[in-house]
Amino acid sequence: MIPSRLSALRALMQEHGVCACIVPGTDPHASEYMAEHWTEMSWITGFLGETGTAVITMDKALLWTDSRYYLQAEAELQGTTVELMRESDIDCPTIPEWLCKNIQGAVAVNPEMYSVNGYRDLQVSLEEGGLSLVSIDLISPLWTENRPAIPTSLLYEYEEKYTGESVASKLARVRQALQERHCQALVISALDEIGWLLNIRGKDVDYTPCLISYVVVEMNQCTIFVAPNKLDDAARTYLNRINVCVREYEQVFDYLQHIKADSIMYDGNKVNEALYEAINPAVARRVNVSPSPVLKMQSVKNAVELAGERIAMRKDAVALTRFFYWLESESRLTNPDNGIPNLESRHNEISLAAKLGEFRAMGENYTDDSFCTIAGWKGNGAIVHYHATPEQCATIDGSGVLLLDSGGQYLDGTTDITRTVWVGDPALIPDAVKRDYTLVLKGHIALARARFPKGTRGNQLDILARQFLWAEGMTYGHGTGHGVGHFMGCHEGPQNIRTDNNPNPMQVGNICSDEPGIYRTNEYGIRIENLIAVRESNNLGAHTTGETFLEFETLTLCYYDTRMIDLARMTAEEIQWINDYHAWVYSEIAPLLSAEEADFLKEKCMPLAV
Amino acid sequence: MIPSRLSALRALMQEHGVCACIVPGTDPHASEYMAEHWTEMSWITGFLGETGTAVITMDKALLWTDSRYYLQAEAELQGTTVELMRESDIDCPTIPEWLCKNIQGAVAVNPEMYSVNGYRDLQVSLEEGGLSLVSIDLISPLWTENRPAIPTSLLYEYEEKYTGESVASKLARVRQALQERHCQALVISALDEIGWLLNIRGKDVDYTPCLISYVVVEMNQCTIFVAPNKLDDAARTYLNRINVCVREYEQVFDYLQHIKADSIMYDGNKVNEALYEAINPAVARRVNVSPSPVLKMQSVKNAVELAGERIAMRKDAVALTRFFYWLESESRLTNPDNGIPNLESRHNEISLAAKLGEFRAMGENYTDDSFCTIAGWKGNGAIVHYHATPEQCATIDGSGVLLLDSGGQYLDGTTDITRTVWVGDPALIPDAVKRDYTLVLKGHIALARARFPKGTRGNQLDILARQFLWAEGMTYGHGTGHGVGHFMGCHEGPQNIRTDNNPNPMQVGNICSDEPGIYRTNEYGIRIENLIAVRESNNLGAHTTGETFLEFETLTLCYYDTRMIDLARMTAEEIQWINDYHAWVYSEIAPLLSAEEADFLKEKCMPLAV
Repeated sequence: MIPSRLSALRALMQEHGVCACIVPGTDPHASEYMAEHWTEMSWITGFLGETGTAVITMDKALLWTDSRYYLQAEAELQGTTVELMRESDIDCPTIPEWLCKNIQGAVAVNPEMYSVNGYRDLQVSLEEGGLSLVSIDLISPLWTENRPAIPTSLLYEYEEKYTGESVASKLARVRQALQERHCQALVISALDEIGWLLNIRGKDVDYTPCLISYVVVEMNQCTIFVAPNKLDDAARTYLNRINVCVREYEQVFDYLQHIKADSIMYDGNKVNEALYEAINPAVARRVNVSPSPVLKMQSVKNAVELAGERIAMRKDAVALTRFFYWLESESRLTNPDNGIPNLESRHNEISLAAKLGEFRAMGENYTDDSFCTIAGWKGNGAIVHYHATPEQCATIDGSGVLLLDSGGQYLDGTTDITRTVWVGDPALIPDAVKRDYTLVLKGHIALARARFPKGTRGNQLDILARQFLWAEGMTYGHGTGHGVGHFMGCHEGPQNIRTDNNPNPMQVGNICSDEPGIYRTNEYGIRIENLIAVRESNNLGAHTTGETFLEFETLTLCYYDTRMIDLARMTAEEIQWINDYHAWVYSEIAPLLSAEEADFLKEKCMPLAV
Repeated sequence: MIPSRLSALRALMQEHGVCACIVPGTDPHASEYMAEHWTEMSWITGFLGETGTAVITMDKALLWTDSRYYLQAEAELQGTTVELMRESDIDCPTIPEWLCKNIQGAVAVNPEMYSVNGYRDLQVSLEEGGLSLVSIDLISPLWTENRPAIPTSLLYEYEEKYTGESVASKLARVRQALQERHCQALVISALDEIGWLLNIRGKDVDYTPCLISYVVVEMNQCTIFVAPNKLDDAARTYLNRINVCVREYEQVFDYLQHIKADSIMYDGNKVNEALYEAINPAVARRVNVSPSPVLKMQSVKNAVELAGERIAMRKDAVALTRFFYWLESESRLTNPDNGIPNLESRHNEISLAAKLGEFRAMGENYTDDSFCTIAGWKGNGAIVHYHATPEQCATIDGSGVLLLDSGGQYLDGTTDITRTVWVGDPALIPDAVKRDYTLVLKGHIALARARFPKGTRGNQLDILARQFLWAEGMTYGHGTGHGVGHFMGCHEGPQNIRTDNNPNPMQVGNICSDEPGIYRTNEYGIRIENLIAVRESNNLGAHTTGETFLEFETLTLCYYDTRMIDLARMTAEEIQWINDYHAWVYSEIAPLLSAEEADFLKEKCMPLAV
């Protein structure tokens, strides 16, 4: 199958006079979760992993992917003639490096699959090596049979009682931002931005309630480009009510070719190159603004959205607490058939995730999980992006560390929480586990307690969560915090809390995760994650130098496993912070639980001796 | 005078068909300390401050400068027709904003006075507003009389016993870096980079031992462009010995026009636009690399340079300790003529700075101060870039806080140190001063003690020095640390420790300052500064996750005024750090002092109770 597809592609490449073709694992909307329709990289290579890029030349087919997917890729590429390029390996060339060394001539990419900035970077790297980049979609003409359709979920209104702001108000603010940069139009292709701007949602992909479409905002009109089969009467009525014109999804390119504007704004990190190329530069100046004004506004949650988040957090905490209560009860039972402990005989990582999902789904206004739950037992917890599969799934045997990272989509808001707990006899918790858990927890608390002047960026704050690990020669390889959407993407920009430079400062109303961790290969993984919201800091005291200071409000409402804390490593302030947090958690969540569950939570929230 | 110069300039502008002319306070080498020859901004406006930019249109002449210079500018602009634009004020437009709003047509600048990147940024801003930018030097044709010559200090060899690396080795490394980017030439205009690369120094400006010149490195030759009157026989012999060709300073432009290279590398943040424009893009591709490979190498001090820095630090510490011993002795004496305390009757900020300068100048191999000493008594210490002048200079009256920021140039290395001390009766130290001093000191220590993985940048570390102030609603407006050169600029890139994003990570061998502060307007300023060098961190312990970790070696060897510490705010680890530091300072410096001075230092270095 794959070899014949590759032959067909090479024939088409020859027709177009190109020597290589890059097929990335992306979609035209820079989406985190992609519709199957766009899995071109998988179609041409046979590799089904989420992350990878294919390069096809006249005599070679290569797949770049990272170490998480090496095993899967090796298996799936068998017999395809596609060779694996292990991009996490230090000596693996980048794609432009490889191309510049191995071919001469033109390289084709589908411009819909590249952001403008990504396309430009690729172009510069190729041109430095004497190659040229051309925009041609070479896969669509070939992938005509059995190509999955674009999803057909219905567009629905996401009511103002949840969003807290009318579309008219949002459009007015966007037009103001356009005016400030002397622009008369904005092109939007990011699906979360479209959902936020028009107060609409859909169910085109898993985990994120987005709807596949494009939007163009002009000074006197706003147009959504969307497949007609995604609009029922209610949707049409709604779009009509908010004065949004409707055109067919594919018409966006033609529309941009004929748009009347001197200057058109786009976010070069999000908008795809095909949209950019559709605009005639002789007619309209193209102004690259990152992040787009929409993303900037969207990341600043208003009071209604924040109130919704707090409601979602309570439901999430109830689900988690019930789950942990069930887990502890279960860990004390044995299977009457064979005397083997219940957890070991009846449960594994997948069934635990499913059980948690059941508790979460009981929450009012729950629509979906916000990502695929990670339940990592012992050594599996050390694999950062671990997902159990039926083939590879650990049984909950004996005592050990369980890392549980999960989240929900509620109409009220989006959640994301990680707790690491000890399952089994607490007397068996190793000192090394306590040390690691405590160092992670200290960092988690230091970030949560931070106060910082307005204008501070996440990359300045990141070290607060890492400092105690670093002092002992340890670190973790992932970011400390990502932005979170409101009933939208669980990962949202522009702000984050990472080591990488990011020019976007923390804004009042931003929501971020606070999730340091430590990973011991083949032993265990520890991660502790809350969501935190930025608010203005009051009570600066009489000695302040007068700047505006910000701080975090902790949103997540779930206890920490205090049995894993090495109190000798905690300061009095840190212990007090835990005690205050637990008192708050108990007061908020206990009333929502059964008497037995509330008793369980009470014990978990017992104050620690300062 | 100024009005007639402005008229002449406007006539020339008209001739060239430009509507405005920008005259910045810069030189062709992006120097921190500028030769008088290039003070074009002062010549056209009458304003003598170090920082400012003039804009001249057909009917207006404006000077942008920051709040440090408002008073001086107001006085010096009297009668010139030049209006002051207060650029620190929140409603002050930027120069491009003002120009786009007020003129139409072409704006002229002297391309020698702009870095390539600065020129490009200006061009983009002007073009967004419909203006064009043209490269013309309009001042030189007018400033023919009494223009100060380019300085004529002699080039001298800076011996390998100080630099630790031969020019041949440095050139080989630079050529390797050129090859890696497919370039065959490097243009250098930054004087510190030239000094480092060719192991040469000069004395063309104050404080930095640099020599005005350009350098072009090619694969088979290296050329210095320098005025012949800067070369004596020894200099010519030396340049000949290291195989460096000599051409006239101004010939660099012509040389670049005819250079044989496919690709020429330049650092767009340093190299001036005139050099860039001299290269014919049809002949050679111009490759913008920031920082230049030279600056990157130069910022990584080798073992010989670090050993030299440690020697310089001991001399600096001896000077500071002697000065403080003298200051305390003096503060106990009264003037026999009038019974007024000696400090008040005989001393002021300028005389203290001079006294410190005398002690420092006694150090072997001392050549100059590394910047103009800041001695800020009481409220003057709160003015961050304060410099006492004969007209504005505080007498050392009574008891109070003295901030003393100074540094020296020794052939062994460059120093920069700030100490804040209490002068007078220690019983009078206010609690507020102790609180502020202690919060600053805690941040200073936290940065000095930091451990961090390889790849960490200064903007990630900066918060360590600010966190204790931020927690109480306080901050300081300057950077926490700057890079420091080796017998070269006291401020050197590419790394630094600031809130601003900076892509350059800390490298083993980098030297930085660690100088948090707090400033109480009209009351006092507190700043505590050491120089610290990056080294690899050993003894990570058995639980390390295996990355390479770095840490700082403290280089500066001068005691802190422990009478100003509020011990109740210090952790046991912090107090231990101070005690260890003081034990080291005493052991290193006491043997270099007189018996009385050593006794004084012993008392200052007494261990604090943990």
